[in-house]
Amino acid sequence: MAQILVIHGPNLNLLGRREPQIYGTATLEDINRQLAEAARPFPVELDFFQSNHEGEIIDRIHAAFGKAAGILINPGAYTHYSIAIRDAISSVSIPTVEVHLSNIHAREEFRHHSVIAPVAVGQISGFGEYGYTLGLFALVDFIQRKGTLA
Amino acid sequence: MAQILVIHGPNLNLLGRREPQIYGTATLEDINRQLAEAARPFPVELDFFQSNHEGEIIDRIHAAFGKAAGILINPGAYTHYSIAIRDAISSVSIPTVEVHLSNIHAREEFRHHSVIAPVAVGQISGFGEYGYTLGLFALVDFIQRKGTLA
Amino acid sequence: MAQILVIHGPNLNLLGRREPQIYGTATLEDINRQLAEAARPFPVELDFFQSNHEGEIIDRIHAAFGKAAGILINPGAYTHYSIAIRDAISSVSIPTVEVHLSNIHAREEFRHHSVIAPVAVGQISGFGEYGYTLGLFALVDFIQRKGTLA
Amino acid sequence: MAQILVIHGPNLNLLGRREPQIYGTATLEDINRQLAEAARPFPVELDFFQSNHEGEIIDRIHAAFGKAAGILINPGAYTHYSIAIRDAISSVSIPTVEVHLSNIHAREEFRHHSVIAPVAVGQISGFGEYGYTLGLFALVDFIQRKGTLA
Amino acid sequence: MAQILVIHGPNLNLLGRREPQIYGTATLEDINRQLAEAARPFPVELDFFQSNHEGEIIDRIHAAFGKAAGILINPGAYTHYSIAIRDAISSVSIPTVEVHLSNIHAREEFRHHSVIAPVAVGQISGFGEYGYTLGLFALVDFIQRKGTLA
Amino acid sequence: MAQILVIHGPNLNLLGRREPQIYGTATLEDINRQLAEAARPFPVELDFFQSNHEGEIIDRIHAAFGKAAGILINPGAYTHYSIAIRDAISSVSIPTVEVHLSNIHAREEFRHHSVIAPVAVGQISGFGEYGYTLGLFALVDFIQRKGTLA
Amino acid sequence: MAQILVIHGPNLNLLGRREPQIYGTATLEDINRQLAEAARPFPVELDFFQSNHEGEIIDRIHAAFGKAAGILINPGAYTHYSIAIRDAISSVSIPTVEVHLSNIHAREEFRHHSVIAPVAVGQISGFGEYGYTLGLFALVDFIQRKGTLA
Amino acid sequence: MAQILVIHGPNLNLLGRREPQIYGTATLEDINRQLAEAARPFPVELDFFQSNHEGEIIDRIHAAFGKAAGILINPGAYTHYSIAIRDAISSVSIPTVEVHLSNIHAREEFRHHSVIAPVAVGQISGFGEYGYTLGLFALVDFIQRKGTLA
Amino acid sequence: MAQILVIHGPNLNLLGRREPQIYGTATLEDINRQLAEAARPFPVELDFFQSNHEGEIIDRIHAAFGKAAGILINPGAYTHYSIAIRDAISSVSIPTVEVHLSNIHAREEFRHHSVIAPVAVGQISGFGEYGYTLGLFALVDFIQRKGTLA
Amino acid sequence: MAQILVIHGPNLNLLGRREPQIYGTATLEDINRQLAEAARPFPVELDFFQSNHEGEIIDRIHAAFGKAAGILINPGAYTHYSIAIRDAISSVSIPTVEVHLSNIHAREEFRHHSVIAPVAVGQISGFGEYGYTLGLFALVDFIQRKGTLA
Amino acid sequence: MAQILVIHGPNLNLLGRREPQIYGTATLEDINRQLAEAARPFPVELDFFQSNHEGEIIDRIHAAFGKAAGILINPGAYTHYSIAIRDAISSVSIPTVEVHLSNIHAREEFRHHSVIAPVAVGQISGFGEYGYTLGLFALVDFIQRKGTLA
Amino acid sequence: MAQILVIHGPNLNLLGRREPQIYGTATLEDINRQLAEAARPFPVELDFFQSNHEGEIIDRIHAAFGKAAGILINPGAYTHYSIAIRDAISSVSIPTVEVHLSNIHAREEFRHHSVIAPVAVGQISGFGEYGYTLGLFALVDFIQRKGTLA
Repeated sequence: MAQILVIHGPNLNLLGRREPQIYGTATLEDINRQLAEAARPFPVELDFFQSNHEGEIIDRIHAAFGKAAGILINPGAYTHYSIAIRDAISSVSIPTVEVHLSNIHAREEFRHHSVIAPVAVGQISGFGEYGYTLGLFALVDFIQRKGTLA
Repeated sequence: MAQILVIHGPNLNLLGRREPQIYGTATLEDINRQLAEAARPFPVELDFFQSNHEGEIIDRIHAAFGKAAGILINPGAYTHYSIAIRDAISSVSIPTVEVHLSNIHAREEFRHHSVIAPVAVGQISGFGEYGYTLGLFALVDFIQRKGTLA
Repeated sequence: MAQILVIHGPNLNLLGRREPQIYGTATLEDINRQLAEAARPFPVELDFFQSNHEGEIIDRIHAAFGKAAGILINPGAYTHYSIAIRDAISSVSIPTVEVHLSNIHAREEFRHHSVIAPVAVGQISGFGEYGYTLGLFALVDFIQRKGTLA
Repeated sequence: MAQILVIHGPNLNLLGRREPQIYGTATLEDINRQLAEAARPFPVELDFFQSNHEGEIIDRIHAAFGKAAGILINPGAYTHYSIAIRDAISSVSIPTVEVHLSNIHAREEFRHHSVIAPVAVGQISGFGEYGYTLGLFALVDFIQRKGTLA
Repeated sequence: MAQILVIHGPNLNLLGRREPQIYGTATLEDINRQLAEAARPFPVELDFFQSNHEGEIIDRIHAAFGKAAGILINPGAYTHYSIAIRDAISSVSIPTVEVHLSNIHAREEFRHHSVIAPVAVGQISGFGEYGYTLGLFALVDFIQRKGTLA
Repeated sequence: MAQILVIHGPNLNLLGRREPQIYGTATLEDINRQLAEAARPFPVELDFFQSNHEGEIIDRIHAAFGKAAGILINPGAYTHYSIAIRDAISSVSIPTVEVHLSNIHAREEFRHHSVIAPVAVGQISGFGEYGYTLGLFALVDFIQRKGTLA
Repeated sequence: MAQILVIHGPNLNLLGRREPQIYGTATLEDINRQLAEAARPFPVELDFFQSNHEGEIIDRIHAAFGKAAGILINPGAYTHYSIAIRDAISSVSIPTVEVHLSNIHAREEFRHHSVIAPVAVGQISGFGEYGYTLGLFALVDFIQRKGTLA
Repeated sequence: MAQILVIHGPNLNLLGRREPQIYGTATLEDINRQLAEAARPFPVELDFFQSNHEGEIIDRIHAAFGKAAGILINPGAYTHYSIAIRDAISSVSIPTVEVHLSNIHAREEFRHHSVIAPVAVGQISGFGEYGYTLGLFALVDFIQRKGTLA
Repeated sequence: MAQILVIHGPNLNLLGRREPQIYGTATLEDINRQLAEAARPFPVELDFFQSNHEGEIIDRIHAAFGKAAGILINPGAYTHYSIAIRDAISSVSIPTVEVHLSNIHAREEFRHHSVIAPVAVGQISGFGEYGYTLGLFALVDFIQRKGTLA
Repeated sequence: MAQILVIHGPNLNLLGRREPQIYGTATLEDINRQLAEAARPFPVELDFFQSNHEGEIIDRIHAAFGKAAGILINPGAYTHYSIAIRDAISSVSIPTVEVHLSNIHAREEFRHHSVIAPVAVGQISGFGEYGYTLGLFALVDFIQRKGTLA
Repeated sequence: MAQILVIHGPNLNLLGRREPQIYGTATLEDINRQLAEAARPFPVELDFFQSNHEGEIIDRIHAAFGKAAGILINPGAYTHYSIAIRDAISSVSIPTVEVHLSNIHAREEFRHHSVIAPVAVGQISGFGEYGYTLGLFALVDFIQRKGTLA
Repeated sequence: MAQILVIHGPNLNLLGRREPQIYGTATLEDINRQLAEAARPFPVELDFFQSNHEGEIIDRIHAAFGKAAGILINPGAYTHYSIAIRDAISSVSIPTVEVHLSNIHAREEFRHHSVIAPVAVGQISGFGEYGYTLGLFALVDFIQRKGTLA
């Protein structure tokens, strides 16, 4: 079973806890459950992680080195300035897919730019919680094509 | 059956015809066939269109007005400057998903910016031909959530 | 009778066909009819043209060379990047008036800049369909002052 | 009778007084007379004002609050930096049309940008003194459509 | 006989038809004839094409794929923004030489930048119609050095 | 009794006179009365001044030279471009506190920058009319700490 | 009793510990004591927090969700780049006042911009430790006006 | 006797009144007296004017139209943004010399740019009050060379 | 014995653990050992610290206040945006030398700028692990010249 | 016989001396010999000059004043910043053709801009040593058309 | 007798030698003679130097160290980029006056900026050859005020 | 014995000759002597060169081609604009270390950027004359690791 590290960045722990009319009623746990469900047909095991701390996210990425076959990350606000997370991803050389709940390219100018993107396989943004499922599919597909997944 | 308009922008007609070691051997026809396959479980009908002409793409989007339930578009190079295509999408008010074969955010600076994104539901980039399948899933999911799809 | 070429750029064919509560119920045909009405007191003949194709607009401008006494153009989204249309206008040396339905200087930053303006007599923006009538008046006035209109 | 405030900004008092071969022989008084003539068919009364003082222009706009049905303004050089005049227009909520004798979008780069435009109904530039007449037509049309003019 | 595709971009069809005192009396046909003359000593065959349509230029470049040994292109105004034509050239991998009648680096700032240049062998600008002849020489020299020309 | 000059910049004379549902019903006189009230516990005397004229504001600042112990200023729109007012404040060397009714850093980009700030003790923005009271407190505190107030 | 969360960002723990001739002798504890003193007349309870860790500040803001009636924050250097803290404030929808000891608009260019400001009620900068008291007053005033404070 | 209009812009009335150790003890009156002295050998008559009001400066320039043979102006802070004063100078076509007490090119970035310079004969900056004398010499020399001075 | 704090920023803990053919086989421990070796001739004691957490690095710098005679820091990715670390260094007033393994001025544009540099004694970049030794020499030399080292 | 000055700028003396597999084996002498060969059919005499010194290049251009009928220059790195060389060319008013071995518009951003171009007849870049021959042809053609060559 | 070094930068040696109808018939020798004439009343000795070589100008400035009481320099094109000449002036700490024949602030954008200005006493531009005389006066005045001239 | 070329750029010849309280009393000769001393343990021979002439520095770098094993360069002000020196270093392919006396990244904005850096092994700045010794160590270490030094 290949391991997939799923990282939720800052503020995502609040999902579904407030303003359900806006963000929906799905909590982060719901999203993780949906993802687990979506992953079932594939020979992968999901490892979930959420943190508001840039440093912890980096530590977690490092810990995945030599273990995880892929990373599915929603870097939240760190998307736009955490060169440190970018370098962490680049250092461990694990295929990484970047996911955003909202369409960052349709929001404020400063959210259009991702410092993570240049080290990611690809980016999915704007499809709400379903974006994670799409990201998982994309990651599995990428790993399979690269032959590192059975 | 809801109609989904699939638009392939400039230069995409060359896919699979040359340098298969780089771009893969899948032609645009192969991609369309895969998409049709992926669409089978859903109550949707795909309508494929490719053009290198900005004006023809606009005409085609207009023709979909009042008919298509969604648009899946890879605007190719027009992504970066065709405000006319953006306005066309905005004019017909049809949910649109933007797809890119390569990760445009990891390429030359001028490819990071999409003038289409602000009028699209979301964007998927970097996953090769599989990105179209993901885009279809995203579009169907969006339409279903909006209730315009049975 | 002096000939005036009236050019409607991309997406303007959709006018009045949708969202009448926003854009009004006037179609492009209505606008053309109003223009024809407004032109009646003057010794001019209007020649209407709409296209979503940058190339067709250029071709049409070329065809007016040596025939039209003036051009009334709403370049739509091409306003902001079609240096090719600008060069076409500049090449045929026909007095040209630029019209915009909305006040482009009050919209998104990228709509404030017109690449057409430097080769136009003047610009009218923000007065809806009535802007065409104003543009016609301006054009006729300009041509009369230049003496190329009886 | 609805009142229309006509404001001529800095340096416009010199019109027609010098270099008639360039700016024409029409003085500001001539322009006002032409405007009065053009206004005759409409149930409007024109109130003319010229000043080179930013503060006086603001005071005059304030004085129109609750009285004028529209403002026709050529802000001259203040177009490009007087946020104070912009805020004055915005404060009194009187429909305002911006007029420029020359085509400001075809002159020096710094004249392309209007800080007034975002609070104006629309902008007319490049048609010389006739631009005022067009601006009056546009303003009357706007007021009539809004129903605040009989 | 190696085939050379000669592409004239937008507005170049007007050459020599007007203002001969400025642009000279040479029409596009004259230029093509001169080019044919200049090509005579070389084992090449010229294929001329002019269009004001971005899409048609792309189509024509695609059609040359696998046939033409080189492209001689004056992209006209598209030089400055048609990433689509750039991608077309890049897609077909045919050696391309970029020619401009005027010295674009000595004109308006926005004409200094070519989006085509990074995918061209080289650029020639400022030598009027003779620039085409120079471009042909450059292209033939390049092809001969690459050994794809006898 | 130390004298405090309170300057209200352009358009602030309209406060409370219109759109009370937006700006509140407090007029400038009300604000001045509240300020006078708030000043009562301190050995200071307030001197109120409002003008829409940049020059008058400068004159008033000059007149305070050698007399006022502090300036409380809401420069309104002049905040963003009046280097002349900035130089006036800098010239008289009177401690100055800058107040804004709205949070200028949360509004249009051009309102984020204050040319006055570099010569002010500090800036308070976003707290409506209460901001003046806070500004008074800040100014009195500053003067007391500097020892120029009993 | 309404709860007010007081957050001191990075490096503020060093206050008063060093260079008292520059920063004054007041330590963070002194500031907190002064704030508690200033808060006494109001039905509020202050909750103090200092951290040099971006993640901990976010965690603390989250913990205040549904509990605190207001946040008084000096984000220190994070003011200029922590979009993650901005999003945290925005997520919990608690009225927030931004305080800075120095006048950030009078310092290095990069300190003029606050990414926090657009989600704050207002900003106070330049009044040293007294700025916290002013910020508290502003926050209490805001909460009272909004009716969420008795 | 040719008339020379000497204009002192905003804040220059304070010269010599304060901080003599920095700006010297020369008042504006002293400077004017020195200038009158320096002018004695030439057939010119000096007309002094100071104002902090942009509008008054424009009015004064207009009043010089047809009377003054030259203008010597220190536009103070208006140097950097008063396009209105620039247009006034340009309108009256009177040779104008721009003087600055300090070396504006060695101060803050925003003081390096003069909107007045493009319509002035030349600029002198950095030589304190003596700069006015140099400016007078330059102006007289220019007028003499142009032959408009005996 | 003077204490030198050696700080290794984010991702540097991975050194030597992977891709030895690229980054060499030296681990962070090896670098520290080499540094200790290099430090032997000097009356200094090295204190090593690595963290991926911005906040921990700040805490560690604070802890050095009043104890360490110098700081040798490789801020990794934080070099480019951590104003908080910059302020921490500036706050403790300990001489600091900045080291980078790679030549940051020869890499991506965004790595050319260091927010740390303005508060550091100097910067060494591009010499791999040997850069630390050079940095130590530089720091000892600086401290000795300042006389704070025996 | 008309004289043509051929100027090779900095570092071009190294051509062919090193890395022949990259730059070819042609030395500057070879290029000059080829040029002389290419010039033979024309009534021109070539005068070769190479220098790494900006000043010497300027001196040489001055020396050509009144003697040379044309200049063929490869300004090397000076292309991008030597306004002094630009002014020299502009001063002597000798028709100048700019040549670059590589396609400068396809290299680093800073090499896209030529300060020389605005004073040159035209520019040829990207055709290696053959570019000189093309430049000579262009120059001779230009001179002949201007009639200054028999 | 105090020594004044007069430096004429690149291309100024051509003055008066060509296009007398544009630049006047005064040669550099004439200018130097006029300067010598103008200097006669003062206890100064002029030392003239012209070079097109940046390095020679620097050498000459160095040679003046400890000898010259002032430098009068027209840096020509080096004004805009020679940081090396700027540093030379700054190194020798000799009062320097910058002179330009034309009004550089009214020419191309790139000529508005002087890298020399921040280390000069002041700048004079736009007064033709007479500017040197004015510069000499300014320099002598400055030196006299500083007391280094009898 | 491997040869190391030590290049001191413009103005460095003045070191120690003036303002010893600022730059220290070490002359360039002293620095060279110290360097020679520091080099003694290594099998290298130092070759010193100073010039204020960009061209001479380029010539000297060329002369080192095929002879020197390394270059130690302080390019002085040329650091920021001499693309010609950069190309010279790049042309000769000799490992080069860049040294700066002051910390250029802590000075004026325009000194932060080095055009030399991208072709250098690394950069050392801010350590005064000791920086040369560090640079020598770095260069020797680099050469030894590359195996071109015994």
